[in-house]
Amino acid sequence: MDRQACLVRDEADPLRSLREQFDLPDGVIYLDGNSLGVLPRATAGRIADVVTREWGTDLIRSWNTAGWVDLPQRIGDKIARLIGAGPGQVVAADSTSLNLYKVLNVALDLADAAAADGGATRRVVVSERSNFPTDLYIAQSIVSRRGMELRLIDSPADIPGALTDEVAVLMLTEVNYRTGERHDMAALTAAAHAAGVLTIWDLAHSAGAVPVDLLGADADFAIGCGYKYLNGGPGAPAFVWVHPRYAGRFRQPLSGWLGHAAPFAFDTAYEPADGISRYVCGTPPILSLSALECGVDTVLAAEPLGGMAALRAKSLALTDLFIALVDALPAELGVGVVTPRDPARRGSQVSLTLAPPRHQAAYAVVQALIARGVIGDFRAGVPGDLDAHPHIMRFGFTPLYLSFAQVFDAVEHLREVLETQEWRQDRYAVQGAVT
Amino acid sequence: MDRQACLVRDEADPLRSLREQFDLPDGVIYLDGNSLGVLPRATAGRIADVVTREWGTDLIRSWNTAGWVDLPQRIGDKIARLIGAGPGQVVAADSTSLNLYKVLNVALDLADAAAADGGATRRVVVSERSNFPTDLYIAQSIVSRRGMELRLIDSPADIPGALTDEVAVLMLTEVNYRTGERHDMAALTAAAHAAGVLTIWDLAHSAGAVPVDLLGADADFAIGCGYKYLNGGPGAPAFVWVHPRYAGRFRQPLSGWLGHAAPFAFDTAYEPADGISRYVCGTPPILSLSALECGVDTVLAAEPLGGMAALRAKSLALTDLFIALVDALPAELGVGVVTPRDPARRGSQVSLTLAPPRHQAAYAVVQALIARGVIGDFRAGVPGDLDAHPHIMRFGFTPLYLSFAQVFDAVEHLREVLETQEWRQDRYAVQGAVT
Repeated sequence: MDRQACLVRDEADPLRSLREQFDLPDGVIYLDGNSLGVLPRATAGRIADVVTREWGTDLIRSWNTAGWVDLPQRIGDKIARLIGAGPGQVVAADSTSLNLYKVLNVALDLADAAAADGGATRRVVVSERSNFPTDLYIAQSIVSRRGMELRLIDSPADIPGALTDEVAVLMLTEVNYRTGERHDMAALTAAAHAAGVLTIWDLAHSAGAVPVDLLGADADFAIGCGYKYLNGGPGAPAFVWVHPRYAGRFRQPLSGWLGHAAPFAFDTAYEPADGISRYVCGTPPILSLSALECGVDTVLAAEPLGGMAALRAKSLALTDLFIALVDALPAELGVGVVTPRDPARRGSQVSLTLAPPRHQAAYAVVQALIARGVIGDFRAGVPGDLDAHPHIMRFGFTPLYLSFAQVFDAVEHLREVLETQEWRQDRYAVQGAVT
Repeated sequence: MDRQACLVRDEADPLRSLREQFDLPDGVIYLDGNSLGVLPRATAGRIADVVTREWGTDLIRSWNTAGWVDLPQRIGDKIARLIGAGPGQVVAADSTSLNLYKVLNVALDLADAAAADGGATRRVVVSERSNFPTDLYIAQSIVSRRGMELRLIDSPADIPGALTDEVAVLMLTEVNYRTGERHDMAALTAAAHAAGVLTIWDLAHSAGAVPVDLLGADADFAIGCGYKYLNGGPGAPAFVWVHPRYAGRFRQPLSGWLGHAAPFAFDTAYEPADGISRYVCGTPPILSLSALECGVDTVLAAEPLGGMAALRAKSLALTDLFIALVDALPAELGVGVVTPRDPARRGSQVSLTLAPPRHQAAYAVVQALIARGVIGDFRAGVPGDLDAHPHIMRFGFTPLYLSFAQVFDAVEHLREVLETQEWRQDRYAVQGAVT
C-alpha cells in the first residue's frame, strides 16, 4: 500500500477519464463532495448561455424555446436513472426540506385514509435521532400541527422493533450524514410494509454515490439533494420521487401553480397535474436548475463505463484504501474509524474520531488539513455525550474525480498534522460557522 | 404627442442613465418586465464569478468567505428599502407560493390564538377571484387542511363589506396581474384591522414598480417576486416580510434547518431563529440568489435620483402616454383600456382589450407585435364570461429601461398590426403554452 501502488491502480482505473469533467483547484484533495460537489467543467459555459442568450436575448420566449417549463421533469428523468426509478417519476424542485414536507404530508394522508378504511390508527412517525436535522425539523412541524408524535430511535438495530401498528411512516436517510453508515433499504422497507408502515427515504448522501433501486426495494417515497454527489452547485434544487402507486393520489400541500394540471390556463381552482408533476410548486430558479442538470450529467457520463455499479466499486475501493491506511497509522495518534467496515453498510464517506485526550482536537485537525489542501469537514458531537456521539472528522470520496494516490496523500497529511501537532496552532483553534 | 415630443422627453428624463444598467437586445421594445425582468449588465459577470471562483475555487469555504450563508438576509435588507420595511425584516427565500404558505399559516395561527383568548372564531380567508392563481391554490390547500373557507370576491369595491367577524385574513395582490389595477393598501389594511382581520399583501407586481410602504400602511405580512420588476432572472427566489410585532411569534410550518436559531449546531430539536430569519427554510439556490441581488441593485441604483418616487413618476408618465396614444387610435380598431385611468389605482402596466368582433384576436395581435419586437403578453379571459373577464393584451412599463419614444413606437406598431390585419397570418394563430 505504498504510493507507487496507488499510482498503478490509478493507471488501471477504468473511470479515470471521468475526472476530466471537472475543474478542480490545483493542489486540492477534495474530500467534501458529500457537502458540496465540485464544479463541472461544462457548468460555467452552460450558465453563461442561460444568462446571456436564454434570459438576456430570448427573454420570456425561453419558457418555451429553451424548455424552461419542462426542466423539473427533464432533470428529474435524468436523476431517475441514478436511483432506480422510471421516467416520469421524479421532478427536480425546491429544497430537500420542502420535498420532505410534501411527501411526509401525503404519506400521513395515506395512513389516515387507510385508518378511515378500517385500518389501524397510526399517529407516529419513526426516524433516527442522528438523521440530518432538517428532516427532523420538518417532521416536528408536521407532527405538531397534525397532533402526532415523532419517535426517534437511537440505534439502527432498534428500528425494526419500533415498527408497531402505531406507526404511520418510517422516515430515514439511507446514508447517515455523520457516520456514513448505510441502511439496508430493501430489508427495512420490507419490514415496514409487513407492519403496515410507509417509507420515506432521504437520498441526500446516496444519489450519485451508491446504487439506489427505489422500485426494486419497493420504497414509497424518496427525496434527495442536488448539491452533494450530484454536483449541482451550491443550494442546487433537490428532487422528489413518489412510487407510481401513490403519485397520482392526494394533493401535496405546497400546491403552487406549476403543479397545476394546466398552469397556463390560470384557472381559479387548483387541479393537480397527473403523477409526480403535482410535486412541483412555484416557478423554479432556472439558473440553479440548469447548473443541476450539468452536475447530473457528470454522473450519467459513467453509464457507458458501468454506471452506478462501476462508481460504487471504485467508491468502495477508495474508502477501503482510506480505512486500511488509517488503520495502519501509529496507534498513539489515536485515530478511530466510525464508519462501518462492512462495505454493504457503508456509503461513500469515512468518518474518523480522535481518542481521548485528543478528541476535542478534531475541529483543529480538520482545519490544519484544509490549510494543506485536504478538504474534509467537521461535525460536532453531542455535548455531554461525546462517548456515544463523538466529534467527527468527515471525509467524502467521490469516485468521479478522486484518485487512489490522492487517498494515500490525504492520510499522509493526516499523519503529519497529528505527528507534528501543527493542529495546535492558534489559527486552527477557533471554530467557524460552516465547513 | 408626436414622436419628436417623446424624444424631447427622453432627453430631459432624469432617469435615462439607468437604462445603461441593462443588456437589451437590439430592436426590442420590452413591455414584459412584469413577467420576466430583463438581464442586468452586471449579472453575467457576477454569476461567472460565483460559479468559477466562489464555487469552483473556494468551494465550501464560500459559505463563510463569500457570505452565502447570509445572502437571504443581505438581499432581504436591500429589498426592504424598496417596500417600506426596516433592516432585518425581510429575507429572500424560496418562491412566492412557498412564502405565502408560510405567512398564511402563521396568520391563521394568530387568528386561532386570538380566538382562544376570547376573540371571535374566524374561519374564512378573503381574497379576490382575479388574484394570481398560485396564491389561490396555496390558500385552497391551507383552508382545506384546516377546515376553513376561502371566500373569493369578484369586485374590489366589495372587499370592505366582506370583512366580517368570520374573517381571519384578507389576502390580496396589491396590483392585479391581469388588469394592472392597484389596491389602496393603507385603506384596506385599516378597514381589515378595524374588523379584526389580518392582511397579507402579495407585492409580485409592486416591488420595484410602485412605492410600497408596508410599515406606513401597518400591513401584517407581505410576500413578493424576484423575477419581475426586480430583474432577478428566471425563477429568481422570492421574498417575505413579517411585521416585527409578529415576526418572532409562532413557527412557520416550513421549518428547514437554515431557519433554525443555530443551524450549524445540528441540534435534534427545531428552535426557530429570531425574527424574520425563521422564514428561511432549506439551503438556498446560490446562483439564482446571487442573480437576484444584481437585479435588486438595478432598482436601488435609482436611490440617488429620487428612488421609488422618481421611478413611480416616470412609470405613470409612461403609462399615461401609452393610454393617451391608445385612446387616440381610430375607434374602428376597437382597442379598449382595462387598466384604471386614475393614476392612484394603477400599477406599472396597462392592459388592453379588443372590442367584438375582434376580441378573440388578442392572442394573435400579441404574437404579431412580438414578431415586430414589441414584447408584451396575453392573458386569456374567463371562458363563457368574456364580457366580464375578457382576453387581455398586457403591457408592462419598467421605468428603469423604457423610453417615451419606445412607448410611442409600441402604439404605432399596434396600430399597424390592426390596420394591416397582419395578425390574421396563420403563424400567429396557434396559442402557445407560455407568454
